[in-house]
Amino acid sequence: MIKQYLLSPGPTPIPNEVALAMSETMIHHRTPQFNKVFEEARQGLKKLFGTKNDVLMLASSGTGAMEAAVSNLFSPGEKVLVINGGKFGERWLNIANAFGLNPVEIKIEWGKAVKIEEVEKQLKAHPDTKGVMIQASETSTTTLHPVKEIAKLTRGGPLFIVDGVTAVGVLSVPVDEWGIDALVTGSQKALMLPPGLAFIALSDRAWEKTKGAKLPRFYFDLNLERKNQQTGSGAFTPAVSLIFGLRASLSLMEREGLDQVYARHARMSRATRAAATALGLKLLAPENPSPAATGVFLPDGIDADQVLDYLRDQMNVTLAEGQDQLKGKVIRIAHVGYMGAFDVITAVAALEMALRKFGVEIPFGRGVAAAQEILMEALA
Amino acid sequence: MIKQYLLSPGPTPIPNEVALAMSETMIHHRTPQFNKVFEEARQGLKKLFGTKNDVLMLASSGTGAMEAAVSNLFSPGEKVLVINGGKFGERWLNIANAFGLNPVEIKIEWGKAVKIEEVEKQLKAHPDTKGVMIQASETSTTTLHPVKEIAKLTRGGPLFIVDGVTAVGVLSVPVDEWGIDALVTGSQKALMLPPGLAFIALSDRAWEKTKGAKLPRFYFDLNLERKNQQTGSGAFTPAVSLIFGLRASLSLMEREGLDQVYARHARMSRATRAAATALGLKLLAPENPSPAATGVFLPDGIDADQVLDYLRDQMNVTLAEGQDQLKGKVIRIAHVGYMGAFDVITAVAALEMALRKFGVEIPFGRGVAAAQEILMEALA
Repeated sequence: MIKQYLLSPGPTPIPNEVALAMSETMIHHRTPQFNKVFEEARQGLKKLFGTKNDVLMLASSGTGAMEAAVSNLFSPGEKVLVINGGKFGERWLNIANAFGLNPVEIKIEWGKAVKIEEVEKQLKAHPDTKGVMIQASETSTTTLHPVKEIAKLTRGGPLFIVDGVTAVGVLSVPVDEWGIDALVTGSQKALMLPPGLAFIALSDRAWEKTKGAKLPRFYFDLNLERKNQQTGSGAFTPAVSLIFGLRASLSLMEREGLDQVYARHARMSRATRAAATALGLKLLAPENPSPAATGVFLPDGIDADQVLDYLRDQMNVTLAEGQDQLKGKVIRIAHVGYMGAFDVITAVAALEMALRKFGVEIPFGRGVAAAQEILMEALA
Repeated sequence: MIKQYLLSPGPTPIPNEVALAMSETMIHHRTPQFNKVFEEARQGLKKLFGTKNDVLMLASSGTGAMEAAVSNLFSPGEKVLVINGGKFGERWLNIANAFGLNPVEIKIEWGKAVKIEEVEKQLKAHPDTKGVMIQASETSTTTLHPVKEIAKLTRGGPLFIVDGVTAVGVLSVPVDEWGIDALVTGSQKALMLPPGLAFIALSDRAWEKTKGAKLPRFYFDLNLERKNQQTGSGAFTPAVSLIFGLRASLSLMEREGLDQVYARHARMSRATRAAATALGLKLLAPENPSPAATGVFLPDGIDADQVLDYLRDQMNVTLAEGQDQLKGKVIRIAHVGYMGAFDVITAVAALEMALRKFGVEIPFGRGVAAAQEILMEALA
């Protein structure tokens, strides 16, 4: 078996159209030719983010944009509320600590979404909170947080800062409509690009707050970037090829239609959950599942990491592992980006086969059939 | 559903490694640099064809190499025995007629292999036969002919000319060991390349016969090519990028190991047949199935072409149609070239879903399960 099937939640498969665009002849970035490409990508990003404001492109991984949100919006010692429901919630906490903020943590059991009432309670207990940080989709636990509802609580209050790394392009997260103050994402998820680009959009009041924000920043100085990206291609050397690819991937998404893109992700994730359930496997996030990836507990006594190694090394099927306390217990099946119905079928069929190899009595085709029932819904 | 799943018997999917190699900077073909690439490809082809003689590369489709076999080996009016078991058998007949040969036809029911006794009988009835033409794998009927056995009959007698278009790289067809006098193939099948290159190997006695062969030829003059390909990159401008790709695809096949490549194709085809049978679908070639593609009759009253259109246009899954008298009755599922276990699963799951759309009572997952059982055999 030589063919590779990449079903991880980033990097994700790259469409040939995007790979080809990235192979275009290198051009200089301080030219009208590149400015045109950059501007087209900028306009596409605004639609994707649902904002009239700028969406800035940074040559970094998604974490760079997370750091930019912190360093541009706050001053030392300011209090922020961090909703920590997984590895990426933890990352907000680490960044806040690294920059000398005063984070209050809402720690959530992995696989659960934060409760609105808990956020409300903490905001009341800490009226001096200047920011609330969250993941829209917590990739490590395949859980969706109620971003739209929390945005209502922060309106007029603390800035609401959302990590949309496995949310933007997977589900609708309209920045202006919902009242999000900062939304960040990375290139290697729903945008169907290699890693290396990050994106951030700020609200008007967030831009206002940058003026008094005293944390140090240089590479991620968003005011400097905004000025330079409105008139050219940014303050520092942009990732030229990735931006060629970005223009192509945004155009693919526009051709499919954003509503269709979201519906496809939702359907793939529902199909995967139905398959897991049909196979008697427990879901990691049964109540608030993210449409980007599905976490599944493997049966007791089975080492999930061994199953994943087997899938990757013997079957060329790459799924993702559980992290920290979920290590060895959980696998995560991604359905984000350039994936379709038969990638879900591949993941489920491969899992059925691998589990049998590990001695689990799995009736072949049962999970596949459950997925097929749901994937059929897309067919006219 | 945006993602394309190409499961046709040519063109077949192109591995990124091969696409990348074809994107290398264009170089001039009359250079030591290109000669090196050409020579590496030549050596790889000799291993693949199992011959100590030259395997010539032609910038043409596979039909060009078929024509070359005829025009270089025969003189006007010579008698040839054509085994015609499908569209490509018919093509031998058409070429033989176009060049003024005197073909004797063995016409075989589509989906059946030729019987050795029939070939023996015709050779006895026509002792003046100068050549026997056949397909190793008749793509149109997904049938394998007994090439090894026929080669025993032609030893010392008429030249044995084999169309290996969906055989070379799919199963072992060793030219020297079996005593084949001409073996041709094209680039867009097991070689995992786009269409545009054809290949031909001749035996010593075939080369000998070219000397007296009086049919007209210019572009496909194999003696001219042999001379020029032994010392450079051929008589006319070679398809430079395709040959870059060829070197890469031969190297991928060598890395996998030819025995493994053949075993993979055999397993994928067995899995597809098992799936079809589990779904109650009749096979087009149950007795002598080709490992390159599987022909399946759809249930009575179902228009196979409509199902194929639906698969292609609604599900982005491209399978192949039945031709001529099989049109509307049969579909062909390819498993040739850059395909793996989960391409079989995709084809079967998609077929299950499409058939249900057309009102066939198909239990989801039943065909998939049958395929999984066989695909498992490859797993350590």
